[in-house]
Amino acid sequence: MGWQKIEVNSSRPYPIILGNPLSELGAYLKAHWSSTGHVLVISHPEVLNHYQAPLLSGLNDYKVDVLVVPPGEQEKSLTRLNDLTTQAVSKGADRHTLVIALGGGVIGDLAGFFASVYMRGVKLVQVPTTLLAQVDSSIGGKVAVNHEAGKNLIGAFYPPMAVWTDFSTLETLPWSEIQNGLAETIKHALIDDLGLFEFLEEHKVQIRNRESAIYREMVTRSLAVKVRIVSQDEKEQGVRALLNLGHSFGHALETYSEYQEISHGQGVSVGLVAAGYTALEKGYIQQKELDRIIRLLHAFDLPTSAPGKDPERLLQLMAADKKNRRGQKVLILPKGLGKSVIDREVDDDLILYVWEKLTQE
Amino acid sequence: MGWQKIEVNSSRPYPIILGNPLSELGAYLKAHWSSTGHVLVISHPEVLNHYQAPLLSGLNDYKVDVLVVPPGEQEKSLTRLNDLTTQAVSKGADRHTLVIALGGGVIGDLAGFFASVYMRGVKLVQVPTTLLAQVDSSIGGKVAVNHEAGKNLIGAFYPPMAVWTDFSTLETLPWSEIQNGLAETIKHALIDDLGLFEFLEEHKVQIRNRESAIYREMVTRSLAVKVRIVSQDEKEQGVRALLNLGHSFGHALETYSEYQEISHGQGVSVGLVAAGYTALEKGYIQQKELDRIIRLLHAFDLPTSAPGKDPERLLQLMAADKKNRRGQKVLILPKGLGKSVIDREVDDDLILYVWEKLTQE
Repeated sequence: MGWQKIEVNSSRPYPIILGNPLSELGAYLKAHWSSTGHVLVISHPEVLNHYQAPLLSGLNDYKVDVLVVPPGEQEKSLTRLNDLTTQAVSKGADRHTLVIALGGGVIGDLAGFFASVYMRGVKLVQVPTTLLAQVDSSIGGKVAVNHEAGKNLIGAFYPPMAVWTDFSTLETLPWSEIQNGLAETIKHALIDDLGLFEFLEEHKVQIRNRESAIYREMVTRSLAVKVRIVSQDEKEQGVRALLNLGHSFGHALETYSEYQEISHGQGVSVGLVAAGYTALEKGYIQQKELDRIIRLLHAFDLPTSAPGKDPERLLQLMAADKKNRRGQKVLILPKGLGKSVIDREVDDDLILYVWEKLTQE
Repeated sequence: MGWQKIEVNSSRPYPIILGNPLSELGAYLKAHWSSTGHVLVISHPEVLNHYQAPLLSGLNDYKVDVLVVPPGEQEKSLTRLNDLTTQAVSKGADRHTLVIALGGGVIGDLAGFFASVYMRGVKLVQVPTTLLAQVDSSIGGKVAVNHEAGKNLIGAFYPPMAVWTDFSTLETLPWSEIQNGLAETIKHALIDDLGLFEFLEEHKVQIRNRESAIYREMVTRSLAVKVRIVSQDEKEQGVRALLNLGHSFGHALETYSEYQEISHGQGVSVGLVAAGYTALEKGYIQQKELDRIIRLLHAFDLPTSAPGKDPERLLQLMAADKKNRRGQKVLILPKGLGKSVIDREVDDDLILYVWEKLTQE
């Protein structure tokens, strides 16, 4: 069958299969997986409500077990990993079992990390069902659980066998979830695709109206940016840092609000504006370019400031960013629209100035 | 400097540096590790008593922190992994930190697995201080922790940056620990080095007398067998299975006695004899060859039978071996001395017959 796909280069290259129904994954496995073994689907209850039936309808030729994980970021834990292991053993999972991670970022990270360590690693297929997971978290092989001292502190780089992306799963997604993916898509556009930025500007209404043809184009272009970057730098030694555009600022804001008050997409959105102001002060972009970024974020109801927050505290939180290198902040900044740079020479004074601007009430 | 070394081929090739003092590891790092960063030594209290001073004397140019793990197999746990992560964060460990695993198999597995997942993987140097770790567990990149449902159930294939082997650490080792390594060394000789088998036969007395020149030769030849095999098959897809010679039988015996009554080396020793009897029945070896195996094991006070154990139960326990493939037992058997084969066609009747023979009182 002619699956449309994009290849990701890595220590083990793998394809992203684009826009095919979940029910066809079984046929893909038959064509590409030599084993006739055991399949372990790991997912959330609500995702299973929607997609268990179509996914399993294609897997009739396999022994399939489903492991259910409650929703929520707190499930990305060693405790849940231990529990998944117990359940997997009881289902007879062995080193020839294949794990399907069906869901958003939490499932991709948790089930992906489980697959990377169970019996020292079993095969993994990522089936991202959210926009954020489709354009971002399912690509690049990063998997992890959290630790009380930090998010994603325990994990691995573990390329899946394939990423299976069915755009129709986006149709049932709440708008807040779409926003998370749009923030990363705007980030991808800023990093490396001016044409995507313009596409988003031109199709604001269709995106809000959830027009599927527009989503197909948008998701494909957005994830292609990530594929190009991770294919050059699997283990985050260099250019992959560009994907942190907006994230150093955004993570500080997320930590500030203890991940309750604002979503990841909202953090990234404000982070993109903060990076934009910093870039403006450094002469990397013009005011009218920054205005376009802010207008585009607004069009999707994404926040572009953080009124009332303490700028000093936000600056302090950025000092704890794990991307920093020996106390030196490593920031990614836009350079015009559609290009970005790694900047290790941004003064704390400038960062504080930017946070002061963005926290005014 | 001219470090004597053997290269291991893997997804990331690495050297085993042979027979150099711990105090020189720092000089090696200066020559081969571009970072000037942070070193985290993970070890047991008793090992640190002996070796912390010489190791740290060579690491003056680095910021070094030492994390102490109590002795015992039960420390290979997710709980201890979580605790090491907490401590590492508190010491300021980041993705540029290098972990030194100083100790035997438990430390190598635990600290190695920690290094493989901390911030998705940091650099690792294995410094094996026991004979078993030097000839076997430090080589090949397997790291893991245990789970209530099985040993080494959660782990990774994680090649270290280097393995640093100082033969002088063997001098303080209790005889029971030497025995564990001798069992694996006899296994290595049987798998792929008739010359090593003869060397062991010829130097029984010197080995019991702990003569260092003999150990140097023996360890180098023994680990070279493992290096040759894992270099052909990093991820245990094929020939690496040969390293399980004696282990399918031995693990059953270890599980039977719940890892209390007999050591791993004792389990392997009986397992080698069981594999030998099986091979004898299948016509792979002659009685006089089996006698030589038994005599060599006896010479080092290693057990060659399991009187009083229940043969039916031992057979049942072998059905749970995670190396089995869909219920079919995969056994490694000696073929003469110095060669071995993978045999998937051994009847349960024959295995039971062998266990009956070995469990007679």
